[in-house]
Amino acid sequence: MEKTNTKVNAAIVVIGNEILSGRTQDQNVSFLAKWLNEIGVRVEEVRIIEDKEDDIVKCIKEIKDKYKYIFTTGGIGPTHDDITSQSIAKVFNLKYGYHKEAYDILEKYYAPGEFNEGRKKMAKIPEQASLIYNPSSGAPGFFIKNVYCLPGVPSILKSMVEDLKNKIIGGDKILSRTISASTVESEIAKSLEEVQSQFKNIEIGSYPFFRSGKIGVSIVMRSTKNNEINDCSKKILNFLSDKKIQIINRE
Amino acid sequence: MEKTNTKVNAAIVVIGNEILSGRTQDQNVSFLAKWLNEIGVRVEEVRIIEDKEDDIVKCIKEIKDKYKYIFTTGGIGPTHDDITSQSIAKVFNLKYGYHKEAYDILEKYYAPGEFNEGRKKMAKIPEQASLIYNPSSGAPGFFIKNVYCLPGVPSILKSMVEDLKNKIIGGDKILSRTISASTVESEIAKSLEEVQSQFKNIEIGSYPFFRSGKIGVSIVMRSTKNNEINDCSKKILNFLSDKKIQIINRE
Repeated sequence: MEKTNTKVNAAIVVIGNEILSGRTQDQNVSFLAKWLNEIGVRVEEVRIIEDKEDDIVKCIKEIKDKYKYIFTTGGIGPTHDDITSQSIAKVFNLKYGYHKEAYDILEKYYAPGEFNEGRKKMAKIPEQASLIYNPSSGAPGFFIKNVYCLPGVPSILKSMVEDLKNKIIGGDKILSRTISASTVESEIAKSLEEVQSQFKNIEIGSYPFFRSGKIGVSIVMRSTKNNEINDCSKKILNFLSDKKIQIINRE
Repeated sequence: MEKTNTKVNAAIVVIGNEILSGRTQDQNVSFLAKWLNEIGVRVEEVRIIEDKEDDIVKCIKEIKDKYKYIFTTGGIGPTHDDITSQSIAKVFNLKYGYHKEAYDILEKYYAPGEFNEGRKKMAKIPEQASLIYNPSSGAPGFFIKNVYCLPGVPSILKSMVEDLKNKIIGGDKILSRTISASTVESEIAKSLEEVQSQFKNIEIGSYPFFRSGKIGVSIVMRSTKNNEINDCSKKILNFLSDKKIQIINRE
């Protein structure tokens, strides 16, 4: 598989009042972002929006052509506040109703007599949508064009990534290297800026931390080019050594 | 203090590649959202964007007139990747340079000889900005009109809320009540929808959970009206009782 200089980007749209109210701590963004990085897809934007049809439709319309992939999380369950499917149908002007394949999957999943109204609602998906299979709780996700709709429950979302692997085509893998050092940001700011100016293709981030009573800074380099990260890393290690700053760890 | 039917909304803009890459789990959104709820400010949107000046400027311009308050987190430190202050200056067409009050605070904060270039950068704030005081590490946040700029480090951000309390004027407090029951969503979806249709002013959310081997659903009611929440709560408890569904807890 040969790939040259392919950059693939994505956005994540978290649909959920429970995240906006602070009641629930979102876990899906960091999980998806890490997984996407691994396969060479860079998440460039995240939006967290309310469970409101107008907001969902507007948001997806606004961003769907800006990114190669859009992932939504949340709002595909059986209750009245689950309105992602109907909203996505509106975005693409598609009919929203029972999706034969999804219906069949759910009918088989539940014991006879247990496929009730609530559960049937999870088979209501925009027509022409393709399914994303759910090995943990039956109800599938779906995608239309570049918009991939996933559930909000983290354990279920994680289990569905297995099927997504066949559908998402990433570009060059985004490599990351971190040097953590026993210093404060202001001590290294100038040197770090100089290194950044020499390596335009590397994104250098600087993040202070306070761990078990110790302060330090993590310097993170991200790029698709391993040799450039090596060179950049050397320059950083050099100035840290010149300043007699102790390295805490490298990963 | 008499307040009637005042709704105050807000958006949070998280500026940080480390959140988008999944390297760092954001903690500020849930902290700020909960605190804002307490004082009657409803967070209606969150955006997580890259450390890029154009993106920051565009994002703030797009949303600043849609919400009473905008809070940004991240990007006000001393390193090259901290570009929030200069970006906000651009949004409002203000000069970006040393802010006298911020400079004085930082000069006093650091020991003689320790107020270096990196630290001085943290005094570069758009002119005419008002400061948000930082009791934990000196470097202030700032605000211009309705845009409040806070740091990304959660412990520092938390310490600055004390000063924000004097600046943010909330509306009616958003009350929340949760009933957790030993059931699955599809069993209660229809009854819950009926209750929702009777209480248009209450936002009812339904969230499945899996905790210590048990499955259940948390039904969350949110509204500014306590008496309506009481009535709604009764209806929900009634149908749960009719269905012989066990209540796990109420909070």
